[in-house]
Amino acid sequence: VATGEQREDVAPRVGRALEALIAEQRRALVELGSEVDRLIDAAAAAVSGGKRLRPAFCYWAWRAAGAPDDDRIIVAASGLELLHASALVHDDVMDESDLRRGHPSSHRAFADLHRESHLTGSPDRFGLGAAILLGDLLLSWSGHQLRASGLPLDAITRGLTYFDSMRTEVISGQYLDLLAQASGEDSVPRAMRVLRFKSAKYTVERPLHVGAALAGAGDELITALSSYGVPLGEAFQLRDDVLGVFGDPLVTGKPAGDDLREGKRTVLTALAMESASPRDRKTLTTNLGRHDLDEAGVASARQAIVSSGARAAVERLISQLTGAALTALERATVVDDAARGALTDLADAATRREV
Amino acid sequence: VATGEQREDVAPRVGRALEALIAEQRRALVELGSEVDRLIDAAAAAVSGGKRLRPAFCYWAWRAAGAPDDDRIIVAASGLELLHASALVHDDVMDESDLRRGHPSSHRAFADLHRESHLTGSPDRFGLGAAILLGDLLLSWSGHQLRASGLPLDAITRGLTYFDSMRTEVISGQYLDLLAQASGEDSVPRAMRVLRFKSAKYTVERPLHVGAALAGAGDELITALSSYGVPLGEAFQLRDDVLGVFGDPLVTGKPAGDDLREGKRTVLTALAMESASPRDRKTLTTNLGRHDLDEAGVASARQAIVSSGARAAVERLISQLTGAALTALERATVVDDAARGALTDLADAATRREV
Repeated sequence: VATGEQREDVAPRVGRALEALIAEQRRALVELGSEVDRLIDAAAAAVSGGKRLRPAFCYWAWRAAGAPDDDRIIVAASGLELLHASALVHDDVMDESDLRRGHPSSHRAFADLHRESHLTGSPDRFGLGAAILLGDLLLSWSGHQLRASGLPLDAITRGLTYFDSMRTEVISGQYLDLLAQASGEDSVPRAMRVLRFKSAKYTVERPLHVGAALAGAGDELITALSSYGVPLGEAFQLRDDVLGVFGDPLVTGKPAGDDLREGKRTVLTALAMESASPRDRKTLTTNLGRHDLDEAGVASARQAIVSSGARAAVERLISQLTGAALTALERATVVDDAARGALTDLADAATRREV
Repeated sequence: VATGEQREDVAPRVGRALEALIAEQRRALVELGSEVDRLIDAAAAAVSGGKRLRPAFCYWAWRAAGAPDDDRIIVAASGLELLHASALVHDDVMDESDLRRGHPSSHRAFADLHRESHLTGSPDRFGLGAAILLGDLLLSWSGHQLRASGLPLDAITRGLTYFDSMRTEVISGQYLDLLAQASGEDSVPRAMRVLRFKSAKYTVERPLHVGAALAGAGDELITALSSYGVPLGEAFQLRDDVLGVFGDPLVTGKPAGDDLREGKRTVLTALAMESASPRDRKTLTTNLGRHDLDEAGVASARQAIVSSGARAAVERLISQLTGAALTALERATVVDDAARGALTDLADAATRREV
């Protein structure tokens, strides 16, 4: 029970660390004048909400290494959330998404600010530029939190090595994703490769590595955390893909079927294209990526994915991968027992059906 | 003479440090498959060329602190060039610039790749997305070079503190610039504020601080470097603004009058609007920011800026600021003598008329 309570505590503590950073940066930028306030406000909005999944994995890997609870690891872990917020802001620009977590996406909010302030030029161009800068700012701050944590310098250096890999991998994985969408090709192996680098390693394995490295963990724990983290990360992203197509807008914060309209190429859609009947394949080819797709179109695309057997196949895959992650976790004697319980809970939270 | 030769040496050494980083990152990303090669190629292209001005200031501040020549400071200083390359890639996206240093800008090059590879969807959207990711990648790598330098951890930490300020200030300054363009307001104090944060501190003062801090310099040198760096950075940007309007395309790598077409709000244009005759002011209001501005339009806008007296006023300002920087440098007894010569040469290189 104590462990469960502590896990719940990570998210609000990370939130407070981020608020402290925002307040500090606001003070540091006071010389630039009050107009910068809106940029800082946007940064605060971009890091609010969210499940703080990456900081939680980072924190519990620290604990898995036997290190005690400490505010310094919370501050360091909050850097991962800044990276994530940056990626989401830039993702929304690239995908032209209007909504994020039920609120206007950053570039839309800046475009609204442009209109309300009666500025000149195109509100959309202003929104695009300001959101690019906002993402850059959040990305710049992400490493700062590791250094500002107060942890010993050698620990920070070890953590930053993994954090650097995490940043490079997720950005390169996003590029692969962009190429995959533009190739219009639905190969399952390609979709799996994008999923692994853009999301799986980024969401679970690398945050675990950062936390473990900050605690001074050896190779044995790093390897054990990969055995748990890689399959779990894949299961997490597969769940996210299912939610993107079938999820409740109230849970996802995005309009129903938004991933279908965007034409997102995922393992789910690749499997569906591979096993669909000729008629269903035609439905998918016609409807995926249509920005004006109406509710009936969303419903028929969903139906085609279900009847191809892809949805069921992905659910089986999620179960298998989550099972593999939990088996690896059980076998990892190097993991501290209190942390094992929290990591088991996290595996559930990351792959839970919310539809 | 020896000093002059050494200064010339900084740029190619920084280039080699960047090539080594690119090669290392290419190896690290081999698992993602060959499609990532084009992203790494684009990163290599984005950091090639350029005057390496920021690394040079960083290097010579290190030397100013009395530290000897060392490959480690070159590697660390190359991180500043990565930040700069990132800012230019994102700037070109925001400004919709087609050219950079005489070559297609990154987003244009990616749009061309899209066309050549016969991908689906909009080439421009693909170019935009890929260039955003490229800038993110370069920004992520910028801090890595300081850490990978092999300098002692406490030195790196001191350097990163100033580097963090540098990143936050330049991004916030760019946001102020975006707001200034969108407000359509030409106030001289506002243009000076943008110039100071977006460019002056970023190009000279902060690179000096990073180099001095890496060498373990005390507050006295940091302050002395500000007295030289702030006015010099302002003079540098004023020169850049003049070149943007009057510069030779062969030198700037951009079409003549491009800043006029973009409607860039600078100290030069603000001064011109303030002191222009009613007729010249009308010429400027009509022509600034017109994307279809022809050669005759560029010529008449230039003429209006000259006859307002703004060009001459900016030249005087450049001389005064450069003079103030050099006086401060002469008086700074804390600066090592060999470095003083190189910093004097750099002041000249950064503010030289090339029109």
